[in-house]
Amino acid sequence: MSASGYPFQQHHLYQSLMDAADRMRQPEYHLGNLMQSDQRWPKFSRQGAGLLFDFTRQRIDEPILELLLQVAADLEILPRFRATAKGQIMNVTEKRPALHTAARDFSSRRLMVNDTDVVKQLEQVRHQFNRFSADVRSGRITGSTGKAFQDVVVIGIGGSHLGTEFVATALSPFSDGKIRLHFLSNVDIHNFGLIASRIDPETTLWIVISKSYTTAETLANASQAMAWMKSKGVDPAGHLVTVTAQGSPGDSQETPVLATFHMFDFIGGRYSVTSAVGGVPLSIYLGCDLFEEFLKGAGEMDRHAAGAAEENNLPLLAALISVWNTSFLGYQHQAIIPYAAPLSRLPAHIQQLNMESNGKSASADGKLLAEPAGVVIFGEPGTNAQHSFFQLAHQGRPFPIDFIGIRRPFYNQYQNHYQGVTNHQELWANLLAQATALATGHPAPDDPARHFPGNRPSSLIVLESLEPYYLGSLLAFYEARTIMEGYLWGINPFDQFGVQLGKKVAGRIRQTMARKNSDPDRPLQYADPLVRAHLERLLGR
Amino acid sequence: MSASGYPFQQHHLYQSLMDAADRMRQPEYHLGNLMQSDQRWPKFSRQGAGLLFDFTRQRIDEPILELLLQVAADLEILPRFRATAKGQIMNVTEKRPALHTAARDFSSRRLMVNDTDVVKQLEQVRHQFNRFSADVRSGRITGSTGKAFQDVVVIGIGGSHLGTEFVATALSPFSDGKIRLHFLSNVDIHNFGLIASRIDPETTLWIVISKSYTTAETLANASQAMAWMKSKGVDPAGHLVTVTAQGSPGDSQETPVLATFHMFDFIGGRYSVTSAVGGVPLSIYLGCDLFEEFLKGAGEMDRHAAGAAEENNLPLLAALISVWNTSFLGYQHQAIIPYAAPLSRLPAHIQQLNMESNGKSASADGKLLAEPAGVVIFGEPGTNAQHSFFQLAHQGRPFPIDFIGIRRPFYNQYQNHYQGVTNHQELWANLLAQATALATGHPAPDDPARHFPGNRPSSLIVLESLEPYYLGSLLAFYEARTIMEGYLWGINPFDQFGVQLGKKVAGRIRQTMARKNSDPDRPLQYADPLVRAHLERLLGR
Repeated sequence: MSASGYPFQQHHLYQSLMDAADRMRQPEYHLGNLMQSDQRWPKFSRQGAGLLFDFTRQRIDEPILELLLQVAADLEILPRFRATAKGQIMNVTEKRPALHTAARDFSSRRLMVNDTDVVKQLEQVRHQFNRFSADVRSGRITGSTGKAFQDVVVIGIGGSHLGTEFVATALSPFSDGKIRLHFLSNVDIHNFGLIASRIDPETTLWIVISKSYTTAETLANASQAMAWMKSKGVDPAGHLVTVTAQGSPGDSQETPVLATFHMFDFIGGRYSVTSAVGGVPLSIYLGCDLFEEFLKGAGEMDRHAAGAAEENNLPLLAALISVWNTSFLGYQHQAIIPYAAPLSRLPAHIQQLNMESNGKSASADGKLLAEPAGVVIFGEPGTNAQHSFFQLAHQGRPFPIDFIGIRRPFYNQYQNHYQGVTNHQELWANLLAQATALATGHPAPDDPARHFPGNRPSSLIVLESLEPYYLGSLLAFYEARTIMEGYLWGINPFDQFGVQLGKKVAGRIRQTMARKNSDPDRPLQYADPLVRAHLERLLGR
Repeated sequence: MSASGYPFQQHHLYQSLMDAADRMRQPEYHLGNLMQSDQRWPKFSRQGAGLLFDFTRQRIDEPILELLLQVAADLEILPRFRATAKGQIMNVTEKRPALHTAARDFSSRRLMVNDTDVVKQLEQVRHQFNRFSADVRSGRITGSTGKAFQDVVVIGIGGSHLGTEFVATALSPFSDGKIRLHFLSNVDIHNFGLIASRIDPETTLWIVISKSYTTAETLANASQAMAWMKSKGVDPAGHLVTVTAQGSPGDSQETPVLATFHMFDFIGGRYSVTSAVGGVPLSIYLGCDLFEEFLKGAGEMDRHAAGAAEENNLPLLAALISVWNTSFLGYQHQAIIPYAAPLSRLPAHIQQLNMESNGKSASADGKLLAEPAGVVIFGEPGTNAQHSFFQLAHQGRPFPIDFIGIRRPFYNQYQNHYQGVTNHQELWANLLAQATALATGHPAPDDPARHFPGNRPSSLIVLESLEPYYLGSLLAFYEARTIMEGYLWGINPFDQFGVQLGKKVAGRIRQTMARKNSDPDRPLQYADPLVRAHLERLLGR
């Protein structure tokens, strides 16, 4: 099995799938018709690792599902996923394995990378931050003036921010309120100012997260935080924790800090929530037992993704549907609509995970693709989204949707009835109604303003509850789906060269600004007049 | 001038524009080349109402701009916008004027609708909530147990939520901290539970916002809140304010409340931030002077949008570019990336404003459009977005972007230097770098993984600062742009029939649930087996 594989467009069934897509555009294959079959539910819904995946409202039928599964089998998607989890170098452009799954592997198996057992390595880091978080929460470890920590500020951006923010928001009902968690991601001084206005320097712990410890925004914010601490008479060394690669400038060997926890180059930022990146802040915020439950759910989904047969494999089915919708039916975007306020930051996390992984135009073996891979992912919680952008979903440009429902609510004590149903039931009535209305529509050919064409596809993912275990399973489901999508498109879902050019140009502009700052009388020089026009407004000529 | 107009596709220059779009796909019209012209900045940037609009990086040249302006003139877009602001019935399907602009009209002109001067009517409501908010903030009005209010919970969804949330988040640095503001939008019991865990019933004021006072989610939440207050021994009548239409079930004539402020059917939800919908909560949160500054900025942009000539009219130019990008160049989505953490909820508000207004398939005069209008709008603040989904922006499917920059930061006191620049300058270095890198690209034909094709369009909107005045101008800019886009597409940007079908289906499912709740032994009955499967899992058979 080659590490780079090949895109599904080169598969001999590609034309059959294109023909099938044409067939699906015929009126008799309207979703409202497909959904009439009494085999629809048994054939197009699956369970695994605590999730229910209902894809009865996707624009596929049995022959198409069989074609897609055949392609997946021929392209060895599951063997390639298993090889990934075993440490084969699937991040071929950067010549690294991609081993986020090892961060939640409690099987005590060995997994050797460059003569090191990475499962054990990750376990050691976990033990370190378990101890540390317990000591912070109990007040055994205090700030430099002897007071217990009450606020934690996470300094990190992108992969060092969005996943942790998503999980912290989702699990906030489980917090015992001991620790307040803040995110300082943006280099925006507003972000810093707002947090600074709400915290006490003596009782605040700062966690700086950067693998290389060279991320410009993160280091600017860390520098800002240290200057602020000093101005308040607090010693930064007693208030700072770093999560970084061994030997980086942020490692405790180099910088005086309370503690350093290691991250590794075989786990990319957007896949790092279950490593120390998420583990250090979340263990302090929630306690390490809840974080471990979260890891266990993720691990359970990893085993399902690696082990379940193609036709029962939730992430694989979801990945096939995603590629089908994009590359055959032509949808260029996908919405994620959780009917659960605590999942409000899930869309932003999956937006990053999926768009950064699969928003590519080059195949893993270095060829330009015929058309770009990936889609635009966006979303807001339901029912809110119904009152905002669902007008377009029903009557404008259609886009596929992942609806997410929760079977049991957390706040059972507030279950007032209104119109004969609880609020949680009201939420479900809306979720099911939207999926149904989008799929079936309601034709009004004589009244275009009230015409609902229907045939708008969606999936429904149901979690048993919002307990950490199920949240972990949901996270790992999207991670595995993203990777399998990448393998179907024939790309490397683990690199991100697309972020380099902007950084390079920003460096040039920063230099120009710095020169002007240090010598305000010198005329501002920058070749591109369209950039210079703004620099002159900001800094003077 | 007809109220419904006609779509630009029927204009005699349509084919010329299609030909121009083909021309723009030729390599010599790559943005990197267009931007070389030394006339680019003077020809493709404009100022108005405190905003700078830089569209030098859009895929247009002078002939295209002229064609677009010609179409706008022929379709009478500005006269139609002025007619809207004067009360002509432009919401033709619902037979109403659309007069959100009257809510920030301080000109003391008269504007008669059905024999009522609506400017005066709105002014009276504003005076009422100015007095009320001052009394709440000073402690003159207290809760039922005599304690001053400290928390305000806004119960409202969609248009009664997102705009106010956006403004409150943006202006939070200006809050004096007297009042904490919460939003209970979703019917999700998690949303309620989390708020309830953070507030004291004796010092909490609830503002229920619903024009008809029949919105299911809002009434369910109001009912939940009242039950909770009673359970805590607090009289809801002393803690409840309603914002609703005269004579609705929520008007103070019907319901015992502290106060009622009226909203009117000539201002639609998504355009209502500057009416009592935003005014009541924001005046209490920020004080009415700041809210009035915000209104003044919006009013200034209204005057610009109505009065500036076509070629200098910011919202019109933006609307033309949006239609050009969508209907000629084929982009189906648009991102809004504010390089300003306080604007984090701007994308969600504009997503609603624009997608609900223009996500339509029927023209204003009731014909089915050849292709749907509207685009998918999404976004997150920069630089965060750079570290999340900009991989796809640079190397995957391209999409146009509105970059938003702020000239002067609010927190000037925290201006630490790192790498020779302040954090605010670092933010700007990134903003300018991204816009430039996306447009110019960096070809690497021999190395597809590191190939940047460029030619990715963006605009740059610069606000002088984040003071309320400029925020008001920004809001009104997007409102006017949305309406002008709608007029260009020939649709009615003020109705939203697309939300009806889902509500109807939800009503049927709710009834089924209510029957099962009241008689658990009775077998669950629902015709659609794909809905029933979920109902059985939730409620039993």
